[in-house]
Amino acid sequence: VSTEIASIDPRTGAVVEVLAPPAASVAEICEAAQAAVGPLEALGRTGRAALLDALAAALDDARSRIVAVADRETGLGETRLNGELTRTCYQLRLFASVLADGGYLEATVDHAGDTAMGPRPDLRRMLVPIGPVAVFGASNFPLAFSVPGGDTASAIAAGCPVVLKAHPSHPATSQLCFDILSTAAGKAGAPEGTFGIVYGQQAGADLVAHPAIRAVGFTGSQGGARALLEIIERRPDPIPFFGELSSLNPIVVTPAAAADRAARIGADFAVSFTLGAGQFCTKPGLAFVPAGPDGDALVAAAQSAVAEAEPMVMLNEGIAASYTRGTAALGRVLATSSTGSGAAAGGFRGTPTLLTATAADLPREATEECFGPVAVIARYTDETELFTALGKLPNSLTATVQRGPGETELPAELSRRLRPIAGRIVFDGYPTGVAVSWAQHHGGPWPATNTQHTSVGATAIRRFLRPVTWQGAPAELLPAELRDDYTGIPRRVDGRLQTGS
Amino acid sequence: VSTEIASIDPRTGAVVEVLAPPAASVAEICEAAQAAVGPLEALGRTGRAALLDALAAALDDARSRIVAVADRETGLGETRLNGELTRTCYQLRLFASVLADGGYLEATVDHAGDTAMGPRPDLRRMLVPIGPVAVFGASNFPLAFSVPGGDTASAIAAGCPVVLKAHPSHPATSQLCFDILSTAAGKAGAPEGTFGIVYGQQAGADLVAHPAIRAVGFTGSQGGARALLEIIERRPDPIPFFGELSSLNPIVVTPAAAADRAARIGADFAVSFTLGAGQFCTKPGLAFVPAGPDGDALVAAAQSAVAEAEPMVMLNEGIAASYTRGTAALGRVLATSSTGSGAAAGGFRGTPTLLTATAADLPREATEECFGPVAVIARYTDETELFTALGKLPNSLTATVQRGPGETELPAELSRRLRPIAGRIVFDGYPTGVAVSWAQHHGGPWPATNTQHTSVGATAIRRFLRPVTWQGAPAELLPAELRDDYTGIPRRVDGRLQTGS
Repeated sequence: VSTEIASIDPRTGAVVEVLAPPAASVAEICEAAQAAVGPLEALGRTGRAALLDALAAALDDARSRIVAVADRETGLGETRLNGELTRTCYQLRLFASVLADGGYLEATVDHAGDTAMGPRPDLRRMLVPIGPVAVFGASNFPLAFSVPGGDTASAIAAGCPVVLKAHPSHPATSQLCFDILSTAAGKAGAPEGTFGIVYGQQAGADLVAHPAIRAVGFTGSQGGARALLEIIERRPDPIPFFGELSSLNPIVVTPAAAADRAARIGADFAVSFTLGAGQFCTKPGLAFVPAGPDGDALVAAAQSAVAEAEPMVMLNEGIAASYTRGTAALGRVLATSSTGSGAAAGGFRGTPTLLTATAADLPREATEECFGPVAVIARYTDETELFTALGKLPNSLTATVQRGPGETELPAELSRRLRPIAGRIVFDGYPTGVAVSWAQHHGGPWPATNTQHTSVGATAIRRFLRPVTWQGAPAELLPAELRDDYTGIPRRVDGRLQTGS
Repeated sequence: VSTEIASIDPRTGAVVEVLAPPAASVAEICEAAQAAVGPLEALGRTGRAALLDALAAALDDARSRIVAVADRETGLGETRLNGELTRTCYQLRLFASVLADGGYLEATVDHAGDTAMGPRPDLRRMLVPIGPVAVFGASNFPLAFSVPGGDTASAIAAGCPVVLKAHPSHPATSQLCFDILSTAAGKAGAPEGTFGIVYGQQAGADLVAHPAIRAVGFTGSQGGARALLEIIERRPDPIPFFGELSSLNPIVVTPAAAADRAARIGADFAVSFTLGAGQFCTKPGLAFVPAGPDGDALVAAAQSAVAEAEPMVMLNEGIAASYTRGTAALGRVLATSSTGSGAAAGGFRGTPTLLTATAADLPREATEECFGPVAVIARYTDETELFTALGKLPNSLTATVQRGPGETELPAELSRRLRPIAGRIVFDGYPTGVAVSWAQHHGGPWPATNTQHTSVGATAIRRFLRPVTWQGAPAELLPAELRDDYTGIPRRVDGRLQTGS
């Protein structure tokens, strides 16, 4: 096992930096995280809100350095990476307001009393931090689902120390962000061990197996998730694993939508599936488009947009190779409609590709995620054909309906059929671009995720909390939020929700 | 594989009835559950609240028949079984009020607008039913964690059809309750397939593997849970498993508590650990008691209570045999302090047993759950000894502190040390008796459960729901609860919690 951590420029394939591995062992790092549990919780909601704001400010302050290193390592471009960092700072600050609100604690007070079941003791429930969390960085979001990002922000907000597993696609970005976060956390009064970082596959496996780790946040492949789940099942105490894995993200264009704006949908679809070189978990991989002239116009618009696109830099050699294999496999069973222009100029690149199929004869390959700038348009002649094809789709993070102006009948039926297989239903938009907000849900049944929780938005914090109920506790032994005189947060008291003052 | 389903009287060991297996296959039953998904959700919160009330009324109406059959099959006695049925009816009615309240939907509305991240689309989130749920009946709660019970009540409340796996300890009770629930459900307008039932280990395995099943509720052993988790991991789409498994439920008696009421604690402890023949998941299996005269008095009181107890009827032959093995293993490493009196009079019986140990030299066996009327008292000489021993305990559903009048310092320290290993912290009471309420939490880290959710109380419904977000949806395609003009339930709108009218 090499201890070298190589930073590679995907535009050239050259190693541009070799990092020294951390001096501490995985066990030492996990023990430091364990030691930070009490002090991090003791900061309280106010202290941790200040910590989150300080982390956001520190990342903002180092913006140009972070973006430059990340761009060199990922090839994602400065515009995208600036947007990603903005997103992460926004998410950190959103969690500061989630802490200030306090509703996430689900504080509940049932005073002692008589019930139809007999006398009930005084019971008070709220959520507490679950303990140290392992966060696995994703290849495709060096700044939003990696060392900084939604998992880290929600775990710290919950009061859980975080041990990061750096993704091998961007070790220098990971190390830089880790240093910035650690320094800022120390200045904000967070305990040592609030952040830890490990590198390499073996360290990741050791991390998930370590007794101090109480939950895992993961964004990656189904294969990677299955491997980690096996390690978890072998633990004497299996722990929660929150994996965001794989997603096809189907789009359905109704006949009325195609009649209304075929060219625009075709062009926008091409933008959506090639954005970030198609390396988004929400990339739309399959679009159902009506047969006939309107659908033809839509396809033509998508074709010409794709034909103008040059080969795109991909995150690493493995992803580029897997993309080449995947598009070749699709090409063997489907008609290739359009491919990007120009020769690949070194490094790891993928040629944008659009393929076509019929809904009536949709091969299995077209219903599987292929990571990268490729999509399939499946033409349908009627609703029966469309609905039958929808019945063959895997579960996804998202499903999208493009409808005609004011159209509701077919969209309602599509909504009914798509809800069981998706975590977010998008109307007249595109699934890429996952807004961070209170109402966001970024999840879905397997293989989209393996959890009923989200990894984006305010409720992502629920993953890293567990309920505790105090029975018959004297006031002075209760957390402040559960005492009778506390009014600062939403609480349910004797069955009635109170908003707090 | 025998298709016979035998109802055995544990007081005699005799087979008293042989039931016919269901005519339908597991697959047919699961498909019927799948077909019920849409119609059950379509009943709406009001319709399902009425359904829950109707189920409670039907169980209440058949109370004497149910209790008689259950008593013959379990030997738990009419008082206990009446209480258990009352509890289940109460839980069904509590969920009717949870539905009326509507806060469980976590309805959240974020209107479109500008943010620091750029423009945000309209996003609206709420929880929806997860789909058909498999519920595994528990041996020890024929009426509260089996065909009727918390899992069934919370799944139906959520809008999920339930396929029950009857526990082999009480097939006749299971069949009777199933018939009552099915008939009442039909009369209340619920679709066919709302309830299904299967018998036998192979049927249970087939049930968990069936594609229509979207979640599993389980109360049973660690071994049983591991076996079902393996089946789930082999599914192409692993599903959530909510298991309540094993719990030691430690009690700590402070020196001040022992000084205040040694005899009462000793006697109450003996009642708690022998209640229901010690066949509770919340049975206190280990109590830490101070060395010295006060502690001696406590032990003496427990000893004499145990010495007066006769051998107790246990649920089935396997549990009785396992109990005999478990107490023998404890007896090999610990001093037996007291055992019940009188000879076992046929059937499956266990002799109440109290053993003593020292906290300084606590063997592993004393920290493992032994199902049945047995407990260990471990004596400690000082806080260091006590805290060291607490550090060796497994996670539990509960942890209990008996403190002196007004005592806070040591209880606070104990609370801090016990919270990480328990889901409920009980002060000056006993863990047996799990009240059904909004603030109850019946859970805890592995091996207590494998989930961050509860199986008792209002929030048990969260297990059988998953979030969906609608993006840019026209009002007429949204669920009523997410439309702008809806005010009947608590909602978070643009970040602000509203209690609803």
